[in-house]
Amino acid sequence: MDEVRIGMAGYAFMGKAHSNGWRQAPHFFPGIPRPRLQVICGRDERALQGAAGQLGWQNTETDWRKMVRREDVDVVDIVTPGDSHAAIAIAAAEAGKHVICEKPLANSLAEAKAMLAAAQKAKVRHMVLFNYRRVPALALARQMIAEGRLGRLFHFRAQYLQDWIVDPQFPRVWRLDKSIAGAGALGDLGAHIIDLAHYLAGPVREVRATTVTMIGERPLPGQPRQMAPVTVDDAAIFFGKIQRQEGEVTASFEVSRLATGRKNYLGLEINGSQGSLRFNLERQNELEYYDRTLPEKMQGWNNIMVTEASHPYIAHWWPAGHMLGYEHAFVHACADFLAALQMKTELHPDFADGVACNAVLDAVERSAQSGKTEPVQI
Amino acid sequence: MDEVRIGMAGYAFMGKAHSNGWRQAPHFFPGIPRPRLQVICGRDERALQGAAGQLGWQNTETDWRKMVRREDVDVVDIVTPGDSHAAIAIAAAEAGKHVICEKPLANSLAEAKAMLAAAQKAKVRHMVLFNYRRVPALALARQMIAEGRLGRLFHFRAQYLQDWIVDPQFPRVWRLDKSIAGAGALGDLGAHIIDLAHYLAGPVREVRATTVTMIGERPLPGQPRQMAPVTVDDAAIFFGKIQRQEGEVTASFEVSRLATGRKNYLGLEINGSQGSLRFNLERQNELEYYDRTLPEKMQGWNNIMVTEASHPYIAHWWPAGHMLGYEHAFVHACADFLAALQMKTELHPDFADGVACNAVLDAVERSAQSGKTEPVQI
Amino acid sequence: MDEVRIGMAGYAFMGKAHSNGWRQAPHFFPGIPRPRLQVICGRDERALQGAAGQLGWQNTETDWRKMVRREDVDVVDIVTPGDSHAAIAIAAAEAGKHVICEKPLANSLAEAKAMLAAAQKAKVRHMVLFNYRRVPALALARQMIAEGRLGRLFHFRAQYLQDWIVDPQFPRVWRLDKSIAGAGALGDLGAHIIDLAHYLAGPVREVRATTVTMIGERPLPGQPRQMAPVTVDDAAIFFGKIQRQEGEVTASFEVSRLATGRKNYLGLEINGSQGSLRFNLERQNELEYYDRTLPEKMQGWNNIMVTEASHPYIAHWWPAGHMLGYEHAFVHACADFLAALQMKTELHPDFADGVACNAVLDAVERSAQSGKTEPVQI
Amino acid sequence: MDEVRIGMAGYAFMGKAHSNGWRQAPHFFPGIPRPRLQVICGRDERALQGAAGQLGWQNTETDWRKMVRREDVDVVDIVTPGDSHAAIAIAAAEAGKHVICEKPLANSLAEAKAMLAAAQKAKVRHMVLFNYRRVPALALARQMIAEGRLGRLFHFRAQYLQDWIVDPQFPRVWRLDKSIAGAGALGDLGAHIIDLAHYLAGPVREVRATTVTMIGERPLPGQPRQMAPVTVDDAAIFFGKIQRQEGEVTASFEVSRLATGRKNYLGLEINGSQGSLRFNLERQNELEYYDRTLPEKMQGWNNIMVTEASHPYIAHWWPAGHMLGYEHAFVHACADFLAALQMKTELHPDFADGVACNAVLDAVERSAQSGKTEPVQI
Repeated sequence: MDEVRIGMAGYAFMGKAHSNGWRQAPHFFPGIPRPRLQVICGRDERALQGAAGQLGWQNTETDWRKMVRREDVDVVDIVTPGDSHAAIAIAAAEAGKHVICEKPLANSLAEAKAMLAAAQKAKVRHMVLFNYRRVPALALARQMIAEGRLGRLFHFRAQYLQDWIVDPQFPRVWRLDKSIAGAGALGDLGAHIIDLAHYLAGPVREVRATTVTMIGERPLPGQPRQMAPVTVDDAAIFFGKIQRQEGEVTASFEVSRLATGRKNYLGLEINGSQGSLRFNLERQNELEYYDRTLPEKMQGWNNIMVTEASHPYIAHWWPAGHMLGYEHAFVHACADFLAALQMKTELHPDFADGVACNAVLDAVERSAQSGKTEPVQI
Repeated sequence: MDEVRIGMAGYAFMGKAHSNGWRQAPHFFPGIPRPRLQVICGRDERALQGAAGQLGWQNTETDWRKMVRREDVDVVDIVTPGDSHAAIAIAAAEAGKHVICEKPLANSLAEAKAMLAAAQKAKVRHMVLFNYRRVPALALARQMIAEGRLGRLFHFRAQYLQDWIVDPQFPRVWRLDKSIAGAGALGDLGAHIIDLAHYLAGPVREVRATTVTMIGERPLPGQPRQMAPVTVDDAAIFFGKIQRQEGEVTASFEVSRLATGRKNYLGLEINGSQGSLRFNLERQNELEYYDRTLPEKMQGWNNIMVTEASHPYIAHWWPAGHMLGYEHAFVHACADFLAALQMKTELHPDFADGVACNAVLDAVERSAQSGKTEPVQI
Repeated sequence: MDEVRIGMAGYAFMGKAHSNGWRQAPHFFPGIPRPRLQVICGRDERALQGAAGQLGWQNTETDWRKMVRREDVDVVDIVTPGDSHAAIAIAAAEAGKHVICEKPLANSLAEAKAMLAAAQKAKVRHMVLFNYRRVPALALARQMIAEGRLGRLFHFRAQYLQDWIVDPQFPRVWRLDKSIAGAGALGDLGAHIIDLAHYLAGPVREVRATTVTMIGERPLPGQPRQMAPVTVDDAAIFFGKIQRQEGEVTASFEVSRLATGRKNYLGLEINGSQGSLRFNLERQNELEYYDRTLPEKMQGWNNIMVTEASHPYIAHWWPAGHMLGYEHAFVHACADFLAALQMKTELHPDFADGVACNAVLDAVERSAQSGKTEPVQI
Repeated sequence: MDEVRIGMAGYAFMGKAHSNGWRQAPHFFPGIPRPRLQVICGRDERALQGAAGQLGWQNTETDWRKMVRREDVDVVDIVTPGDSHAAIAIAAAEAGKHVICEKPLANSLAEAKAMLAAAQKAKVRHMVLFNYRRVPALALARQMIAEGRLGRLFHFRAQYLQDWIVDPQFPRVWRLDKSIAGAGALGDLGAHIIDLAHYLAGPVREVRATTVTMIGERPLPGQPRQMAPVTVDDAAIFFGKIQRQEGEVTASFEVSRLATGRKNYLGLEINGSQGSLRFNLERQNELEYYDRTLPEKMQGWNNIMVTEASHPYIAHWWPAGHMLGYEHAFVHACADFLAALQMKTELHPDFADGVACNAVLDAVERSAQSGKTEPVQI
């Protein structure tokens, strides 16, 4: 397999990040099939032309239904808002294309399950792009937990905090409209930290939750005097149990878009009987490790700069001490996907991982409604 | 009023901290009445003699009932475990003594209320020693919120994490026995952050909670083969609402004694519409402030080293850049209490504040039991 | 001008960074001329073929003399070791090509001057690639100083510390051979912080210096038993004066390759009468600013996360809070160069800036020899 | 020996710190002789009375000559400005008193030597109070170096930065007058980091230095229109060699009182072949350790919170995670001195250590004058 032809639906923020991933992967990961940025798809012809030129795509298509059936496309990459994920992904799978989908996999658990079923039935490869799994520091965290360095896990604690809607005059964009976005901070940010819980610790099996909307209405985009209701949450807090062979882990989660001063803060802490880990996405090249097996007087939080050749992905980039940025995790995802296609190896997170995340989101929403502990049901 | 004679019940960790507070206050706070360390009380005569000498007390008493009635005592300072707070405090008030009590005020809301009622009836001064209110950085935080620098508050987020019982062989000491300690991490650590929520943001009015005991039994002290059940929580997580004139604040709390690598980590974050504050007790001389009213390109987390003469309490100590430590907040509490006695000014946190904290603890325990949201009822 | 054709001499670490710069620039900086990666040049045909494929170059050339004269090349980009900079750059200029050269401009001041003279005579554009000038945080630092936010500058303090040769068995590679590298830590790391002093504060006009070689011999590469002398410095320390209209600035510099635990630590601090700035390359997206004009109780080190659209270069990349990495500064340099070519605008750092840096390096070496203060002479 | 009677000359900032040291020592260090704060000495009778009351001294004396001869004084503690250290210390020694002296030992090397000679001749105990040696994190650093954890030392790097005279209207106080203070930032701040170099790494044997006075005149105290010349340095920079059995250490030092935003920043870094240490006095309870003997992927800067019972001095204070402050190091010094008196054990830093520090200061001043490398001569 020399070349893999990509068709991408969507071209906004995530389109920019995925395009860069496809373009950069072959330059840093020798030996993988070369991706061809074959066709980009969007509804606005004019904007689409601009995006295609800027992002490096060779062709355009304004109807995703056509795009997913094109013979010159091997992989469909979906970066549209959540309300169209299911339709595109299912059609792509039915057309025999491999499918990559932005997170969360779908706006509802039912849709997510249908997507997984379609991909499985069509026997195509599928990936949901939880990019943070491929931040080197988090990949290292997983290695260290697998090596048993933390012992029995007691706590998993995660926060994902942003502040881009603190201003009450910030408009009611599509991400604040439940019919398109599915959920607010919960679906957007919560999905990431739920997936990281699954990646690092294990399946969340029950939750107790609250969701809040603290700024209830906002002006419509471009119409500063026309107010519209915000139909998604601004923030969500939930705690639960993570199932793990050696015992249950107590987990807590908090997400917000009203955390003034937090731009893209994803903070994690995992406490185990033998050690702990801390991570902060705003310092994404660092992983802090507390090793309780050292002599007491030598114990401390060891700030590992995850830029050594022995760290995940790093050998492909720069010498020690040279930083990676936000987009590198997407490059890793594209490279890993291409390598897995070629080698026919397993690849995660796949749509089953996406379903697992949607199932937790579903339980969180049920609990926020019922006020009770709700089991996660897949 | 030249001199105030103190009688203290108890002499362990908190006894050491309070004694130091009384001894140091007059040397750094000129003009306050001079405290006399009149009598220290404990059951073990021999240990008591040692403590009296070491801590600077002039007399000893082995029966607190006698101590609280001594004519040469003006103030009773209670640093015993929680199960004896109510009895001692009520007797002291009835004997006309002013009363200071370690936190939490009592092991139950009912006891706390009885203590407040007794103190009010006797018209004596009362203080519950939530020492962290008098850490300069937190006193500054309160000033800044009062000055409106944060605008409308959206979030109050607090964690108090320790790790001293991570080892399953750590013995089942009194703090792990509900009949003496009342609660575990919740009562010990949770009380502190609930009080700080009250101090900084306002009254918590409802909560949803979970408490967990992850290590269910431990050896009895000095009997490594004799296991006993742990009857208190190792960790507690709860979220709720804080009532505030300008709108509700979404609050989340987490406490644990199994957070490996966290020694005495009390982390706070408060997000408002105009700014945010962050604090970490392990760097207690620093307060981080995000000012959203600055031009965007100048915004950041401003790490204020709270050691300037213009900061609370600092003018009494050292020049800028010279650190205070753990015990200083107790010195401030003693100095403030003595000044308030003399000047007949209001003083917080008093027993009413202690009751308010116990009421939240009570709601947390009810919610952990019922699995439902529970109102805070005073 | 639609397209600019690049010819690059060299293909190692810096070749990878420059190639990426050329490839990425047009995708993130709309409107600039599109660079064509026309030809890459190196002596080892086989390795060169691999590099060309991996890095995205269309043609290869094994003789730089041919390459610099090719008609299909507009810009010659030099990423070879320092001993060949002058010859290639001068030939390229004489052939009428624009020239970009890695730092330091040359191994000697005389060579650097000859390069500048050749470029000026040929009236071609020239740039020396001190990449760190285009790290957004440092570009912001320069803006802030220009805005007068620091007042009169008192101190400029810089350290550039690495540890890659701490192991005495690390081989005597070309960077440790004076005949090729020109100098050791001084030329490699010192050049960067001297250039940043020039960029941020002003011209260094005299220095007092020491250079040391603490590990005097090492095995030759691939010959672990064949020791060879290290003929460059491991570390250099120097202090001096920076000339500035409002008064002299006291400057200190330290570089080392034996600073265990420092991977690529470039730390800067600038103290002025009204404020200060701190920067650390290992946290390259942050700039700390102390504003002495705030009320005393609000003063602190403000950690500005330099990821806002209002910060230099950021609008071309990702939303606030999303990090840039090491290679982005090279993309900025390529984009700025292409834009300056098109718009015929001034561009720095040019060869004159490169000469200024070499002049300081020259004074440092003279001072380390003479043991006396030496003037910087251009 | 039950009690040791102290006579103290001086009562300003250092008087407050020493008094607190004497008062606190017996409460936290059981078993040491009890210090009696016998007599405090100063010229201004009225101010002295206030200080005596506030600081806890039983008697006053306005003539130090009388004080040092009093029969009821065992130890003379000198906290006056440097110009009177020698006279008082020599008289005290001649009167058979043990002597403690604030740092630097004297304003000149000759005086320092005379003080040492007098103390040796009189066979009294002597200590120079370089308090930072007794900050637990620095005492731990010394332990770790002695244990060989850093291997061969390559670099010792220290900065002591303050900003209290940045305002040009700040008055020309005694610390800015060479006839009283001896030197400026160099004597005040430089003395501390020279002593720490001696404590942690070994004797400095030669230096190359510069000193600068960037604000040349200031108003006299209380006379805002009467300008007077500043006759001491604002800042000093020097580098040199530290002698050590396994090889020379390259050392660099910088001190300033014009480092805006730095309040009491004493930063240290020591790089060795096997590991490194970092320390920052503004976070005095933390010590960072890089262990190069760990597997590469686990290496990082380990932030040791120096608050464990196994750390120096900590068992006398609070549980893990509870911070010490500025004044604690003085308590440790007083306690250690009292214990050494009783047990007749060696004690450092003594006057010989003080002489060693003055000898480096002397070499720095000579080098700043001559512009050449100057040997340290004792």
